[in-house]
Amino acid sequence: MNAPDRMKQDVRCANALRFLAVDAVEKAKSGHPGAPMGMAEMAEVLWRRHLRHNPANPGWVDRDRFVLSNGHGSMLLYALLHLTGYALPLAQLQQFRQLHALTPGHPEVDVTPGVETTTGPLGQGLANAVGMALAEQLLAASYNRDGHAVVDHYTYVFLGDGCLMEGISHEVCSLAGTLGLGKLICLYDDNGISIDGDVAGWFADDTPARFRAYGWQVIDNIDGHDATAIDQAIADAKADTARPTLICCKTVIGKGAPTKAGGHDVHGAPLGADEIAAMRDTLGWTAAPFEVPPDVAGAWDARTRGRQLETEWNTRFAHYRATYPDLAADLMRRMQGELPESLESDVMALLADNSPLRQKIATRKASQLTLETLVGELPELLGGSADLSGSNLTNVKASVWVNHAENVNKAGKKAGNYVSYGVREFGMAAIMNGVALHGGFIPYGGTFMTFSDYSRNAIRMAALMRKRVIHVLTHDSIGLGEDGPTPQPIEHAATLRLIPNNRVWRPCDGVETAVAWLAALRHDSGPTCLLLSRQGLTPFARSAQQIVAIRRGGYVLADTPAIPEVVLIATGSEVEIAAAAARALGEGGVAARVVSMPCVEVFYEQDAAYRDSVLPPGVPRLSIEAGVTWFWRPVVGESGVALGLDRFGESAPADALYRHFGLTAEHVAAAALGLARVQS
Amino acid sequence: MNAPDRMKQDVRCANALRFLAVDAVEKAKSGHPGAPMGMAEMAEVLWRRHLRHNPANPGWVDRDRFVLSNGHGSMLLYALLHLTGYALPLAQLQQFRQLHALTPGHPEVDVTPGVETTTGPLGQGLANAVGMALAEQLLAASYNRDGHAVVDHYTYVFLGDGCLMEGISHEVCSLAGTLGLGKLICLYDDNGISIDGDVAGWFADDTPARFRAYGWQVIDNIDGHDATAIDQAIADAKADTARPTLICCKTVIGKGAPTKAGGHDVHGAPLGADEIAAMRDTLGWTAAPFEVPPDVAGAWDARTRGRQLETEWNTRFAHYRATYPDLAADLMRRMQGELPESLESDVMALLADNSPLRQKIATRKASQLTLETLVGELPELLGGSADLSGSNLTNVKASVWVNHAENVNKAGKKAGNYVSYGVREFGMAAIMNGVALHGGFIPYGGTFMTFSDYSRNAIRMAALMRKRVIHVLTHDSIGLGEDGPTPQPIEHAATLRLIPNNRVWRPCDGVETAVAWLAALRHDSGPTCLLLSRQGLTPFARSAQQIVAIRRGGYVLADTPAIPEVVLIATGSEVEIAAAAARALGEGGVAARVVSMPCVEVFYEQDAAYRDSVLPPGVPRLSIEAGVTWFWRPVVGESGVALGLDRFGESAPADALYRHFGLTAEHVAAAALGLARVQS
Repeated sequence: MNAPDRMKQDVRCANALRFLAVDAVEKAKSGHPGAPMGMAEMAEVLWRRHLRHNPANPGWVDRDRFVLSNGHGSMLLYALLHLTGYALPLAQLQQFRQLHALTPGHPEVDVTPGVETTTGPLGQGLANAVGMALAEQLLAASYNRDGHAVVDHYTYVFLGDGCLMEGISHEVCSLAGTLGLGKLICLYDDNGISIDGDVAGWFADDTPARFRAYGWQVIDNIDGHDATAIDQAIADAKADTARPTLICCKTVIGKGAPTKAGGHDVHGAPLGADEIAAMRDTLGWTAAPFEVPPDVAGAWDARTRGRQLETEWNTRFAHYRATYPDLAADLMRRMQGELPESLESDVMALLADNSPLRQKIATRKASQLTLETLVGELPELLGGSADLSGSNLTNVKASVWVNHAENVNKAGKKAGNYVSYGVREFGMAAIMNGVALHGGFIPYGGTFMTFSDYSRNAIRMAALMRKRVIHVLTHDSIGLGEDGPTPQPIEHAATLRLIPNNRVWRPCDGVETAVAWLAALRHDSGPTCLLLSRQGLTPFARSAQQIVAIRRGGYVLADTPAIPEVVLIATGSEVEIAAAAARALGEGGVAARVVSMPCVEVFYEQDAAYRDSVLPPGVPRLSIEAGVTWFWRPVVGESGVALGLDRFGESAPADALYRHFGLTAEHVAAAALGLARVQS
Repeated sequence: MNAPDRMKQDVRCANALRFLAVDAVEKAKSGHPGAPMGMAEMAEVLWRRHLRHNPANPGWVDRDRFVLSNGHGSMLLYALLHLTGYALPLAQLQQFRQLHALTPGHPEVDVTPGVETTTGPLGQGLANAVGMALAEQLLAASYNRDGHAVVDHYTYVFLGDGCLMEGISHEVCSLAGTLGLGKLICLYDDNGISIDGDVAGWFADDTPARFRAYGWQVIDNIDGHDATAIDQAIADAKADTARPTLICCKTVIGKGAPTKAGGHDVHGAPLGADEIAAMRDTLGWTAAPFEVPPDVAGAWDARTRGRQLETEWNTRFAHYRATYPDLAADLMRRMQGELPESLESDVMALLADNSPLRQKIATRKASQLTLETLVGELPELLGGSADLSGSNLTNVKASVWVNHAENVNKAGKKAGNYVSYGVREFGMAAIMNGVALHGGFIPYGGTFMTFSDYSRNAIRMAALMRKRVIHVLTHDSIGLGEDGPTPQPIEHAATLRLIPNNRVWRPCDGVETAVAWLAALRHDSGPTCLLLSRQGLTPFARSAQQIVAIRRGGYVLADTPAIPEVVLIATGSEVEIAAAAARALGEGGVAARVVSMPCVEVFYEQDAAYRDSVLPPGVPRLSIEAGVTWFWRPVVGESGVALGLDRFGESAPADALYRHFGLTAEHVAAAALGLARVQS
């Protein structure tokens, strides 16, 4: 094909994206046409000339990743997936935004083949992409060998003004620059418009200068509708593998709409039949809605090239496997998310009678002791902390800090299994989501529990995407003491438990902490939050049966030979208070059972027979947790008592605070006595 | 005093800060000495040479504001407040971090005289300061007249690496630059150390370049221990009133500690007796712990100058009052946070029979209709949205956009009562906190309800500080439809309700929306979240008594002449479903009462007699809310039924989703019938 014809084809390919987006939004009577129309040339160039993928196998491990961070432009992505040959037929595009369609309002991973992450909440797609690029870099540093670049792909992002205004863009781009994630390439759809109108009134950043300040390569002043310029910019971006690249593309939102282009009305509503008809005239597009002209379909079809790319990689990988069979097997195991078979026995071995986990230690310390073993056993564990390593105790002897200059491999790339994310809680959480999405890693990261507020929507996104990400949330109550109410969590245990698919474990001692880690690693359909104490906690003796029962989320920790007159239910640091109260009650002739309930969600997934065996119907219940009590009322029932804290904390030593707020064995015993007496 | 003596005095003044901080942390056996030691010269220069304040009256309305954004350095602030003459005696410094002391672990507003905001969660103090500077600029634009600069103060911030790594610093500094908040002056304690160690491994930004990209004046390469350089930098900062200023001060963390200075061990732990003794030797400090040498005490005492400054201002204000009595009265009313007396009748007038609020409209629209009146009546309302004005419907005819170029007064300053915050939910919320802290405004701001996750910790901080900030959270359920699960809130109503001091209103129609706004304005001891629908909701007829009862948080909306056999409790968009179910039940001969419970927290603050009159004991209960059901179990009790959604939503039209998830009148009626039958 000669140059003019090729250019004409490129234009038609871009316009095919425009019309699929516009027609689908029109049919759905809802959606966002402006962004797909403005990014059509960017998409055409990236997807037809650079992106290495195989539509027949969206799970090819070394594919380039593509993230649409401005996820409201979902129809652009669906059009790309359809046109390049993914299992996304036109009928699905016609069902855009309808129930059970593969084309939901915003892209959702594991719903639509080829979608790499769920986007919509602005800035997080970009953060996920930083995680993917980090995963690629670390896997490459671990597994590639001379002449065997088996991990070798780019991560591309489309993003808009909204992503760049969000604070998380600062957190993750600053870190990406520091870590030199050179295979991360971001294309900024700089259309100057956000929902409130012309962004100049609220977003006047010199964005290129900002990103240069992060150590990025910035290629600015690209005409986002000039395919040649975009093509060259992407080539330049790929060539610099030492720095991430931002390509700033000046675009016109809704480009192609004769009267609406360039205005914010085109952002989030259908164009209307008249505008679309005029657009067809203007662009010389004669095809009907959802009709892709054969020449365009052929030009877009990426299946042959995709098969070829993956086949080449398969050949390379076969050579690698032949030379490094163990590495190859381990890489594949990791990419498939399979745990080593030895995990169970490794963790159980930690619980021997003489284990340091059986000492009086903080559960954050117990977590670190557990990690000392786990990090050695599981190369897929990618640890980290939002600048609180020494407080969260997330780092262990086997931790190799990605951040440290000495941990750079001979290719000049950072290597390691531990990331100091800096003071960037939300960024950390969303990067961890991206790491999990990439595959090859189980990310865990620490911060103070209260600052789960900062990362909350990323925890929710992991829950929505059902990805295995582990949050190590230490300083889990007023027990942190003198730092006072700002870091003291009150409502957080309860509110984290209310996120669907999220699991919250609040272990009461070293043994429960190790079991909680095991449960977290095995929970592969959502995130886990481990709530850990700053202060030392009294260890409990347990039978083998009891240790097994921990996994059921709640179990009888200390019982009375008699039929219990009252059941005391507690979590974490309050279990020892409940146990002391039970002893006092016993001495006073009241039979009290102690139930430890480290994971309420898992306990309520158990069958009724088990639950009733732990919490016998008719026996009055008292709960104690140093947080909001409303959450516990369904557990204790109308006749029960929920002890906790329904106000913010104070600044004082932990013991003084527990006394001040009445969270003492004496108070628990007195309340339980009242309950037992009323009942009898 | 000659120059060498003055310099010597300055040094002793700075060292007094160091020793008070070090000795207090040592006595408390906990705290953060490193930051106060590193910032001692910055503090000495700012507080002794620039800050305009009156220790005898921390409430003087035109005082300069000072925010310690790196709040863990609290002892620096306590030392400053003590030394300059605030009501914070030495005995309180000796009780640092102890129960009931005025010197909690992190600074808390309304606990310690002179503390302007509660800090600790990094980045938010800076954001509060942006809010204070914005408030000053807007008040000045509204109230100052030629020759009468009655609102005229600076806002100063100390901040550290941690604040600058946090995403919120990007959001608020980008906006501050765009809005030209020229009287905001930030001093960056650039000590190169964060908790994980040398920041170079995770924070390599060119921070001066970053802030220049935001349009700030940046004064960099200041030696943070050179008082003369700091003094000149602050003078230069004050001189540029068109741009906010960042002064980058290179400092040594723990400066003055002979062996520990410059390392991260000095960040968050006592220095120890030996190090402190050596420090006394090195710095030639002979005073005992908590002893302030008389010459130093005298040099620090700011009471005389403070009285003089306020007296001068009082004189100026008296002239202003004489010339502009109405403006002066209104400004003082606003600064005192008093609502106009007409508010009640204004809102009630909105509820006339022919009111548009009585039509079938979305509650977000009802909110806008209410605001049409409120914004006209209350000049203190400062509205805004995180780039969703047209969706949140937070803007009204009387809204004057601060962002728009035409709304600049003749002094070149932005004026107005509405802020397009850009896509910056967390920044918006924390700026609103700062606006409320400054006084003179009741800020309200909108975003999609799910993105309260982004701003969550700022909502919590308003709750902790008990400040009146109103969050307009629209698109409050799966009822938003096709945009799908990422923006559809599921757990948010429940989890927002669990934040102490936060009030959550989810009105069911226009009338309840207006009353919710009234309640929000009157709730002056914490934030309010208004949860509003995207979709139109059926209006209900109410008696005058019922309208009054709305304020009690829950009330009988539709009753049966017979004794109810079942009570249906609902909020927001689910009330009309409950009402339809009650009608169906009634037609089937089952007497069902409908309770609307727009604010669960307020309902449970009512006395038991009222609560029992609404929810008669013994009558079975069913709740319906399109969110997690666990929250409602205490309301319906063990025998009741809580209908809702315990999983994430889907992308589809709203009606299809309600049917898909079984949130229909038919389903409610069937479940209620089961309940009523079991009971009878």
